Amino acid sequence: MNNTICAIATGQGGAIGIIRISGNNAIPATQKIFRSASGQELSLQKGYTIIYGTIIDTTNSVIDEVLVSVFKAPHSYTGEDCVEISCHASSYILQKISELLINNGCAAARPGEFTQRAFLNGKLDLSQAEAVADVIAAQSASAHKIAINQIRGGISKELQKLREQLLHIKSLLELELDFSDHEDLEFADKEELMALAKHINAEIDRLLGTFKLGNAIKNGIPVAIIGDTNAGKSTLLNRLVGEERAIVSDIRGTTRDVIEDTVVIDGVLFRFIDTAGIRETTDVIEQMGIDRTFSKLRQAEIVLWVVDLEHADVEIANIYKQIASATSDSKLIILLNKTDIHDKDESEIKEHVLSLIHSDTKNSFSHDISIFAISAKRGDGIDKLKATLSEFTKRLNTEDVVLSNVRHFDAFKRANEALLRVIDGLQNALSGEFISQDLHECTEALGEIIGEVSSQEVLNNIFSKFCVGK
Amino acid sequence: MNNTICAIATGQGGAIGIIRISGNNAIPATQKIFRSASGQELSLQKGYTIIYGTIIDTTNSVIDEVLVSVFKAPHSYTGEDCVEISCHASSYILQKISELLINNGCAAARPGEFTQRAFLNGKLDLSQAEAVADVIAAQSASAHKIAINQIRGGISKELQKLREQLLHIKSLLELELDFSDHEDLEFADKEELMALAKHINAEIDRLLGTFKLGNAIKNGIPVAIIGDTNAGKSTLLNRLVGEERAIVSDIRGTTRDVIEDTVVIDGVLFRFIDTAGIRETTDVIEQMGIDRTFSKLRQAEIVLWVVDLEHADVEIANIYKQIASATSDSKLIILLNKTDIHDKDESEIKEHVLSLIHSDTKNSFSHDISIFAISAKRGDGIDKLKATLSEFTKRLNTEDVVLSNVRHFDAFKRANEALLRVIDGLQNALSGEFISQDLHECTEALGEIIGEVSSQEVLNNIFSKFCVGK
Repeated sequence: MNNTICAIATGQGGAIGIIRISGNNAIPATQKIFRSASGQELSLQKGYTIIYGTIIDTTNSVIDEVLVSVFKAPHSYTGEDCVEISCHASSYILQKISELLINNGCAAARPGEFTQRAFLNGKLDLSQAEAVADVIAAQSASAHKIAINQIRGGISKELQKLREQLLHIKSLLELELDFSDHEDLEFADKEELMALAKHINAEIDRLLGTFKLGNAIKNGIPVAIIGDTNAGKSTLLNRLVGEERAIVSDIRGTTRDVIEDTVVIDGVLFRFIDTAGIRETTDVIEQMGIDRTFSKLRQAEIVLWVVDLEHADVEIANIYKQIASATSDSKLIILLNKTDIHDKDESEIKEHVLSLIHSDTKNSFSHDISIFAISAKRGDGIDKLKATLSEFTKRLNTEDVVLSNVRHFDAFKRANEALLRVIDGLQNALSGEFISQDLHECTEALGEIIGEVSSQEVLNNIFSKFCVGK
Repeated sequence: MNNTICAIATGQGGAIGIIRISGNNAIPATQKIFRSASGQELSLQKGYTIIYGTIIDTTNSVIDEVLVSVFKAPHSYTGEDCVEISCHASSYILQKISELLINNGCAAARPGEFTQRAFLNGKLDLSQAEAVADVIAAQSASAHKIAINQIRGGISKELQKLREQLLHIKSLLELELDFSDHEDLEFADKEELMALAKHINAEIDRLLGTFKLGNAIKNGIPVAIIGDTNAGKSTLLNRLVGEERAIVSDIRGTTRDVIEDTVVIDGVLFRFIDTAGIRETTDVIEQMGIDRTFSKLRQAEIVLWVVDLEHADVEIANIYKQIASATSDSKLIILLNKTDIHDKDESEIKEHVLSLIHSDTKNSFSHDISIFAISAKRGDGIDKLKATLSEFTKRLNTEDVVLSNVRHFDAFKRANEALLRVIDGLQNALSGEFISQDLHECTEALGEIIGEVSSQEVLNNIFSKFCVGK
């Protein structure tokens, strides 16, 4: 990879635009279109210095007054010679400078190519490189924390620990192989080997356990808002996101489409999904909406079931089985809405509902449930709702290493499957060669995460999701 | 102005984001939230150096890995101590770093405040500062050239020349005043004085003459497309802009609204204005469209009159007076359209039309006219049309100083008015004191352009149009 690449690295608009160049030819190519104000040669500069001057075209016309930052290999983002040209954020100027660089032998960078080079040159491992895209995309404090931990080597360090333990298993195993002729010998090490394998298995299990919520935090925790038509679901959504996104009216069944909106509560991104009301209907389009509601409901981590306080007991009795079966894996929050117009005693209803739930012999409702009264219209109970939502994510400590990447999850899962075969082999006193093969598969799967083992296809797939200029 | 300001200087999206900080506290405020990877202190760095490290929040959590560029007063954009923090282009990170800086005593910068400080600290004069916004907004090579000339002091140098000549007049005038007691003395200098004033007057006239086209180049040269309904105006517009913006149909009078679209031809931005067809109508809405057509037509620099080749002679004879009176100041291009379906001899029609035009006794059509056949549908003659449009702007040499700013135009006009009074005073042998007063007004008006004389209101008005971060 000896060619030199360039790309516009800043977004549209703004005051400052940056063009990034990386490769052996980065400094000479820039020099050809640059005149330093004080006559300095770029190639004579130390790394990490900035030179002021102008970019000129082939007719010596000034394109812009710029600052040129010089970085010398290996002390740069990519590990190659790098230049950053900081110019006025005009798309005309940015295009023109790119054009001049390309005419001087640079190639237009592909998406993620700078980070890919950083990976190939050993500046970052693959999990860190992937985190670069996550850091840029992070919209909330918690998603950002997971990504920045990963960029700073959180997963890499965790893997290092696991690897050392696997190496230890391997050495114990080799010891056993050395004595394999003496079938009647008892090995004190065998129990240690087993204990170690189980320990690693537990560690990986813990990591795998962080994935569902970690991934939800990255993309926004899906919260479905369901309930009877006209229960006030759209009003609630509007209150939560603070803007009039869904159409609110007094006509039953207004919301036919699944509407999504996001809001950050206490540093966590929630993705609220307003749904069509759930009720018996003959309207084909409305029925389609209700079907979609149930499918969204199954994908949600949290379900907000909005019920009109006035006939809450009847309604919950009517459809709670339907809701319960679809939400058995999620946190269910039942909101008794419209305290602004009904002065019914909510505690009586809560008791009634809970007894109803507990009478459920199949125990469908044994999962995590909260129930309280609100007024979506007036705002009563909304703070309590936000606190309940926020509480849900507290179970995940984002200071620890958290899996949020489906590729890592998949690799850890395969590593753990291989490890379980190792444990199984040990228990059944299989030959060391078989166990060794499973150990190897485990290590390979872990190696994929940091990119020690990776096909060009996997790499291309990862970096193609980056933006150009990164 | 001792407070320190900060702002996000890059547009949304992209790979790299930049936060800019300027003021006495720029370096200490950044130091409070920054940890250099090699333990270096920002305050000990030379200007124009870059330090790698992390931004940390109050709980010592890492917000991002960044590059910090340090600039020391007066060697910076604003002339003050400046810092640029280059981070991952995540809006979360950019907001978070801004927040940390503000908590450490920085103020959020107002639009254009960095450039305003550069002006107040004498790094740029006012015409150069204004050009910064023009450079960023420039969409075409020609608009960019005008702006970059101005940012590099084109107008300032022109003003310097005029000023020196005005000073020379002043000294000659003072010489005359010294001898004013000797009424009968003939002054050889008087003619020189007059010649100089006329020379300056001619120079300013030349500059004023560049304004109309210069301003049009900056904003896009307005080209109205007019003609009978169904003559193919929308088809022509679509061909020129290369996309299906206007709705094209076979029903007469489809285009009721004035549609604008821009396209860069040969480095010049043209703003095409498709209009409602011009014909007798009883439809009120259509009539409103036609009225608007005539108003747009008067604002256009170039008018494209599209006529169906089949009945071109009749149609031109019918309404050419109406068109002529509304386009007397503009370049008129008559396009005989639909060569794809009519095989009529265009040269005969051209001759006919030209004779018609020349027979016009009032000479309304004596202005700049081109006439040729095209097929908007098939593309015949479109290259000739583009060449004709491009030719129109060649009369302006964008290498020279070109006025494109209405504030400068206005100030030059007032300077010239004062100068004409000077000339008038000289011709009528008015007292030196009167002439001196007019000379002073002339100099003051010129001083406004570079900001030597300017009210806070004028400054605020200029810089408020900038983007934040510039």
